[in-house]
Amino acid sequence: MYRSHNCGELRATHINTEVTLSGWVQKSRDKGFIIWVDLRDRYGITQLVFDAERTPKAIMEEAQKLGREFVIQVTGTVIERASKNANIPTGDIEILVTKLSILNSALLPPFTIEDNTDGGEDIRMKYRYLDIRRNPVKNSLIFRHKVTQEVRNYLSEAGFIEVETPYLIKSTPEGARDFVVPSRMNQGQFYALPQSPQTFKQLLMVGGMDKYFQIVKCFRDEDLRADRQPEFTQIDCEMAFVEQEDILNAFEGLTRHLLKEINGVEVNAFPRMLYDDAMRLYGNDKPDIRFGMTFGELNEVAQHKDFGVFNTAELVVGIAVPGGNSYTRKEIDKLIDWVKRPQIGASGMVYCRCNEDGSYKSSVDKFYTQTDLALWAEKTNAKPGDLICVLSGPTHKVRTQLSALRMELAERLGLRKPNEFAPLWVIDFPLLEWDEETQRYHAMHHPFTAPKPDQLHLLATNPGAVKANAYDLVLNGNEIGGGSIRIHDKKTQAMMFDYLGFSETEAKAQFGFLMDAFQYGAPPHGGLAFGLDRLVAILHGKETIRDFIAFPKNNAGRDVMIDAPAPLDSKQLDELSLKLQITQ
Amino acid sequence: MYRSHNCGELRATHINTEVTLSGWVQKSRDKGFIIWVDLRDRYGITQLVFDAERTPKAIMEEAQKLGREFVIQVTGTVIERASKNANIPTGDIEILVTKLSILNSALLPPFTIEDNTDGGEDIRMKYRYLDIRRNPVKNSLIFRHKVTQEVRNYLSEAGFIEVETPYLIKSTPEGARDFVVPSRMNQGQFYALPQSPQTFKQLLMVGGMDKYFQIVKCFRDEDLRADRQPEFTQIDCEMAFVEQEDILNAFEGLTRHLLKEINGVEVNAFPRMLYDDAMRLYGNDKPDIRFGMTFGELNEVAQHKDFGVFNTAELVVGIAVPGGNSYTRKEIDKLIDWVKRPQIGASGMVYCRCNEDGSYKSSVDKFYTQTDLALWAEKTNAKPGDLICVLSGPTHKVRTQLSALRMELAERLGLRKPNEFAPLWVIDFPLLEWDEETQRYHAMHHPFTAPKPDQLHLLATNPGAVKANAYDLVLNGNEIGGGSIRIHDKKTQAMMFDYLGFSETEAKAQFGFLMDAFQYGAPPHGGLAFGLDRLVAILHGKETIRDFIAFPKNNAGRDVMIDAPAPLDSKQLDELSLKLQITQ
Repeated sequence: MYRSHNCGELRATHINTEVTLSGWVQKSRDKGFIIWVDLRDRYGITQLVFDAERTPKAIMEEAQKLGREFVIQVTGTVIERASKNANIPTGDIEILVTKLSILNSALLPPFTIEDNTDGGEDIRMKYRYLDIRRNPVKNSLIFRHKVTQEVRNYLSEAGFIEVETPYLIKSTPEGARDFVVPSRMNQGQFYALPQSPQTFKQLLMVGGMDKYFQIVKCFRDEDLRADRQPEFTQIDCEMAFVEQEDILNAFEGLTRHLLKEINGVEVNAFPRMLYDDAMRLYGNDKPDIRFGMTFGELNEVAQHKDFGVFNTAELVVGIAVPGGNSYTRKEIDKLIDWVKRPQIGASGMVYCRCNEDGSYKSSVDKFYTQTDLALWAEKTNAKPGDLICVLSGPTHKVRTQLSALRMELAERLGLRKPNEFAPLWVIDFPLLEWDEETQRYHAMHHPFTAPKPDQLHLLATNPGAVKANAYDLVLNGNEIGGGSIRIHDKKTQAMMFDYLGFSETEAKAQFGFLMDAFQYGAPPHGGLAFGLDRLVAILHGKETIRDFIAFPKNNAGRDVMIDAPAPLDSKQLDELSLKLQITQ
Repeated sequence: MYRSHNCGELRATHINTEVTLSGWVQKSRDKGFIIWVDLRDRYGITQLVFDAERTPKAIMEEAQKLGREFVIQVTGTVIERASKNANIPTGDIEILVTKLSILNSALLPPFTIEDNTDGGEDIRMKYRYLDIRRNPVKNSLIFRHKVTQEVRNYLSEAGFIEVETPYLIKSTPEGARDFVVPSRMNQGQFYALPQSPQTFKQLLMVGGMDKYFQIVKCFRDEDLRADRQPEFTQIDCEMAFVEQEDILNAFEGLTRHLLKEINGVEVNAFPRMLYDDAMRLYGNDKPDIRFGMTFGELNEVAQHKDFGVFNTAELVVGIAVPGGNSYTRKEIDKLIDWVKRPQIGASGMVYCRCNEDGSYKSSVDKFYTQTDLALWAEKTNAKPGDLICVLSGPTHKVRTQLSALRMELAERLGLRKPNEFAPLWVIDFPLLEWDEETQRYHAMHHPFTAPKPDQLHLLATNPGAVKANAYDLVLNGNEIGGGSIRIHDKKTQAMMFDYLGFSETEAKAQFGFLMDAFQYGAPPHGGLAFGLDRLVAILHGKETIRDFIAFPKNNAGRDVMIDAPAPLDSKQLDELSLKLQITQ
């Protein structure tokens, strides 16, 4: 037996007990006549003491050799500490060591194994197994485990059945790019890794499973933006015989349960916002509603004056920055530079100071009177002491730009408090979105999403206006889940494929099994999927998912620790009848 | 709202309540003036009644149109049944329907959706979503969910943390064949899908996670034997600072918990058997110990007589078939034919009847006296009325053959009772096994398994004799789990790679990150993995895993429902810089 206790559990009540501990040397302080060693394991740190008077000489000498991260086993007596450490739970005691064995030595780690490490991202990823020893990473992984356990227990209690769906499925050109897997037993053919178990969960509904969930890895071969991973985890859910209202209630319940159990936060009924309102008021379909700064549309009050920039813009829109009147001219100029960066892409920014005396001072004073500007303040809810920032341009672009500015300013103003939680349903998403590149409509959610029944007729005349029974769950400015009511009859599904530009043959080849299934008695159904990586990060008060993934990949899709992907044995390629078209 | 209740919950206490139900038409009996419909959902069956006197005419007519598997919604009043059905929980009541709407019609299913269906395996797989509507399949999936929930809750309670390890990893030529995934962002390079998270769980131990588990999909591109799947699920576990004893206790605890919670069976401490003994007594490293029929080795008593076949055999070994003396000559001949089938491969079988009067009658009477045969009976524990079956040949082959015969006879004799559970640890597995094909030793478990420390020196002189700290958990003749104590120092690991024929460069290229990790303070560790598919099947009293997988693949690795794998778009191949070397 390697240990009688772990390094986090000994207390004053254990004094005089003989114990055996195992763990890593966190640090060692050698005063010559006395050596203190902090012994660490997953559960905590316990102080060991070796002292010239009480410890046998041989053990004393062995203790002097201990380096950082050595793995050791000690036996000794729990004694009271002379100077107690109130910062750690084991701070009342230490172990007077009578037996020491070095289980494994350790090279000096390439970065310090401490809460605030000196290691940069790259080196920590290469030695992720050392990074995981650090409390922030270790605790994030334990936190993730707790969340998934809560999710599973809650959903199981609610009658959901976790069903494993296959990973080796079929490639579909629709949507994002698939990772594919060549089949050796079916030469020339390929499996694809699932982007989500979408069709399988719908088939489970056709199969009468009624309430399904699965915590499952999904795969997308996309060019990686920051904080995207080629493999990611979903809490995937589906229910039969439900309307949108049933689904919102079910998963609002789950989310409320998590906030309570994990964060100790009680949240009232989640507000619901129409997609169109979210776009109009926040420029964004996942608004952070922990703070105000909602958009004020200014077309009515800022156009038809002599300011040409506004007059020709599709949308003129502003936000009031609380206390922003205190910004210096230099600070405001920096803000203007910020919105003009290519990542944001605004061509400029108009501003208006709201002075404490009720007067206004704008960057376009020659075009606008005090009365005009008072209307700007009214539309943006600006109060004396605020700063109004105004952008203009094509509606969608300018909304995106102003939304980015709103989030940036809120961040700077400390309005995005990590321990405040403001969940929100965004509902009535458009069914289709126009794709500039291919010059056609794509399914905004996916091709199985049901249009609002009373808007079906608009598909022919004004497809962009058709709304869907589709919804997102938004938490603190992040989409943590999304879903829809599905089409459950073959006729509507065939019509949708047609609108999405699938020929009948293509639709049959790719989704034939689903359309077949719909002929044999498909129930009304719908569902939702949470992005687990992000959900966990946000519940932990963070926004970077990488910290909550044990072995993440970098932005080039590489695992730098195991050095994957890697070239393949030519024998393996031959077995798959594949040939590389590039020279390596 | 589609329903106020489900189809399994209404009882006599609900009489006179107005309810709404949704579900599938299981069957409909139309007597003209009265129609009964069995409405089915996941939760049960409820009888609906439409009758000419009490039901509006329009609804009556609509009800006449209902076919099997139509999806309907009804509203009505719960009334007492005239003739109650004690076989179903809702058998006391029926619903007098006042409102009916057909949510979806259904084509006639290609097989009957009943417990005993008329559908063969192939058609049921093609329409798996219909097969899942059948109770046996549906209940198997729900059972699987219950088992995984119990596993997760038990291990979490015991301090294990579920950590997700990556699916896109690196190919290693050792062991079974990998499925590979071409990388588009790293042209010419490939990921591999994990055969198990082995190295990652070891790295998590190096990372101090202490106790890890994961219920995880694994992938092996092997030629599929019956009841093997290219993707399968493991309960993967690892612990640090443990010896073999700690691991056996931890997972005996889990297994005992499952048997109790899932099957209501209390099992005492699991017996432990040496691998060598299992092979000697059962010819098999996963013996079914629910019944006797242990092997009796007969070399000593059957050789050195005039029977040349036995004299030249490496092993002569027999089993006593309880009551087998009652077999007719014809039945015994059939048994001989059975062992001579190519799947078994015995060249023949000697038998000896144990008569009730204590005399013997063997097929080789001219070589053996009654005294000789009495010794056979003694060695095989044969009693009067039994039949001794004896095979001979090369040790390993003849053990395998006799083991197959033992299992077959036990099956026929009804000794393999599905509801009796006899778990067993088989321990001290050999470290290496000789591979005839490559003419070298392979790791029997995997190359990270620790040899027994006191046998390390044998590696040079008699590698086949070296035992490992490796163990299997066997249940009712099936291996349900297996694991080992791992090597945790770089030196021993390097030595093992050397014995397994890896050059230093190869070892470094494939496992360099693990060997590097071992330099930074790796703790002693070990673990175990359960095959979840099989575990669930056996707990359910079955041995076919396919029934416990929602969407299994066939023996050619195909999903016949979605028709995967499939040819790829040439555009996709181009993006991956791949070319097929065969014409499709």
